[in-house]
Amino acid sequence: METNDHRADSIWADVERIRAEAPLVHNITNYVVMNVTANALLALGASPVMAHAEEEVAEMTAIARALVINIGTLSAPWVAAMFQAGGAARRGGVPIVLDPVGAGATAFRTATARRLLDELAPAIVRANASEIRALVSDERATRGVDSAHSPEDAAGAAGVLASQTHGVVVASGAVDLISSGGAVTRVLNGHPMMAKVTGMGCTASALAGAFAAVNPSARDAAVNAMAVMGIAGELAAEGVPGPGTFLTRFLDALYLLSESDIRGRLKVREP
Amino acid sequence: METNDHRADSIWADVERIRAEAPLVHNITNYVVMNVTANALLALGASPVMAHAEEEVAEMTAIARALVINIGTLSAPWVAAMFQAGGAARRGGVPIVLDPVGAGATAFRTATARRLLDELAPAIVRANASEIRALVSDERATRGVDSAHSPEDAAGAAGVLASQTHGVVVASGAVDLISSGGAVTRVLNGHPMMAKVTGMGCTASALAGAFAAVNPSARDAAVNAMAVMGIAGELAAEGVPGPGTFLTRFLDALYLLSESDIRGRLKVREP
Amino acid sequence: METNDHRADSIWADVERIRAEAPLVHNITNYVVMNVTANALLALGASPVMAHAEEEVAEMTAIARALVINIGTLSAPWVAAMFQAGGAARRGGVPIVLDPVGAGATAFRTATARRLLDELAPAIVRANASEIRALVSDERATRGVDSAHSPEDAAGAAGVLASQTHGVVVASGAVDLISSGGAVTRVLNGHPMMAKVTGMGCTASALAGAFAAVNPSARDAAVNAMAVMGIAGELAAEGVPGPGTFLTRFLDALYLLSESDIRGRLKVREP
Repeated sequence: METNDHRADSIWADVERIRAEAPLVHNITNYVVMNVTANALLALGASPVMAHAEEEVAEMTAIARALVINIGTLSAPWVAAMFQAGGAARRGGVPIVLDPVGAGATAFRTATARRLLDELAPAIVRANASEIRALVSDERATRGVDSAHSPEDAAGAAGVLASQTHGVVVASGAVDLISSGGAVTRVLNGHPMMAKVTGMGCTASALAGAFAAVNPSARDAAVNAMAVMGIAGELAAEGVPGPGTFLTRFLDALYLLSESDIRGRLKVREP
Repeated sequence: METNDHRADSIWADVERIRAEAPLVHNITNYVVMNVTANALLALGASPVMAHAEEEVAEMTAIARALVINIGTLSAPWVAAMFQAGGAARRGGVPIVLDPVGAGATAFRTATARRLLDELAPAIVRANASEIRALVSDERATRGVDSAHSPEDAAGAAGVLASQTHGVVVASGAVDLISSGGAVTRVLNGHPMMAKVTGMGCTASALAGAFAAVNPSARDAAVNAMAVMGIAGELAAEGVPGPGTFLTRFLDALYLLSESDIRGRLKVREP
Repeated sequence: METNDHRADSIWADVERIRAEAPLVHNITNYVVMNVTANALLALGASPVMAHAEEEVAEMTAIARALVINIGTLSAPWVAAMFQAGGAARRGGVPIVLDPVGAGATAFRTATARRLLDELAPAIVRANASEIRALVSDERATRGVDSAHSPEDAAGAAGVLASQTHGVVVASGAVDLISSGGAVTRVLNGHPMMAKVTGMGCTASALAGAFAAVNPSARDAAVNAMAVMGIAGELAAEGVPGPGTFLTRFLDALYLLSESDIRGRLKVREP
């Protein structure tokens, strides 16, 4: 892990830019996590906005510096808005993060996620292993929005997906795999308590939007976001009795995150 | 209360099964409580999924082990999805829990709740006393989604409703009444602070789904869920200054819940 | 600030009435903040209800004592419901609070907010400085739902807007301006941590609904609500590490709020 110093430099530079610039991140996301992802973006230093009406999404995306699309509670009007916003993002050079929540659980989700991948070619896709496998094969997910696989199970599929989108694919889990152009980075930070609260994956996708807003390398943005998620999760989990207290402290940890937290805890395996 | 040992055995067996099997619970619920009910299901050990699009609800219900329908922020497309999902649940033998939030407050809610009762015959209905009275008479609720009555006021109406659905009806409040087949069980656990945070009733309904996923007796599932809610509420309320801290600790308490917590605190009056 | 004793009397009388009467406050609000605003209303002592279906909003408003309309995640069906509910409120003499979230960020939001202002003439408008400026000029907002201006920048625009609605306009920020009939009151309470969690502005609007439910003077209701927000924010911020803990303690502070908290902390500059 000799490259960790360079990686820590990159992460901290991004965090400082996010705090200084408060980039506007436009989220079209699911009802369950809207509040926690907005709070996580604010705690990190970004400026979240949620908007989903076809009448306004293109205009909102046009003033944003990243667009995060999350299909966790999708419906036909929201899917239409996702394509509207995605089109505006592509025209304006706004980076797109896609979170294909529950792909593989229903045909509607799988088909919608595939269309979003095809038409929008998102800079970053962040998903769990089951979702990524479902997107490149016809494997059926049976755990709803939770994963039945470890990220390593999805390493091959993540690479295939990344070659399709010409972008970055993150398979998150106990270890996060960040795959692009045939290379894989692994982020080993994190804590099992993160699986005991809803929306940690969605929050990772939202933070990836904030990092993509300030870092022109989608790959670095994805790695840095996953590292910050994992480190904040470790800090938050110290001595907590359960997931309620964890969630409270996770927002505190994002807000308090220091350079020494990152340098002292970072565990990244570069390709 | 000589039967409490047997009841504690049943509750603990259910909790252990939920933690071991992480049953998928499909929720079509209201926007206000989606996050807290998902977190409560996760803290207990279940696997929540939220989905409401007509294009996918039947498919999602078919892979779930319980379906929880909550009309707290209903609209026409969501009502259509509730019937779609409910039909799939009936065909697949998936137990249905109905939470008729605000029945009696508007004609739309009362009529929708009655249609859901008639067509889906849910295994468990969980509601407050005002909602249950509104469903069996034409009494108008004037407190929005809060109850103007104590559960004992609804004992008769709960029995009538249970005989209509051939299922279990829970009238929850300071004391919870669980009524089916003419018999009434009372759960005396709980804490007044539970009425000071939103979504505790909805969370009780969601947990009833988790218990129904592992316990073939809808009556036992309902009693056990209400007991766990009440005990977690008591544990969470100890020494808390207010509802914010209470909510945080409530999730912790569900996560940490032990056999001795149950045996030491359980207060159930069997029929 | 010689009038603070009188103001503290007014605030405490309102808080006691809210706690005693638990007025029903009907909210048509955005997905991001529904949970926190419902919890804040409950913590203060009011009874929140959320309903947005055209089939029922008029009926729900008719039993409510205040209607809060918030356009934070608007869409065409919700806008239609806002007008339905607003019409019922006007017919029934139910005070209306409007929160034009993101006015100026997109044409859809600006146009919708203006139509709501014109047709409903809300008793209280609560917004940030950028939103208020966008509503009286054609200034474009570029910070999404956050403000690029201080409330003092909007003092003139708030006065213009208040003269249009014949109501009260609150420009909230580090100092809150409450403008009506050419007079401006300033509330100096509050804490910078309030800008680090989502939904504090929306919560202020919701609480303004609770105060308007018990106080026939819209001006006093608005001033008192902003003072209680600010004081609860100060109490919650004492010694907190970050926004997660702050949010938890904010709900506790609303619940615990005492007469001496108000008398000891109140900083209002009357006209």
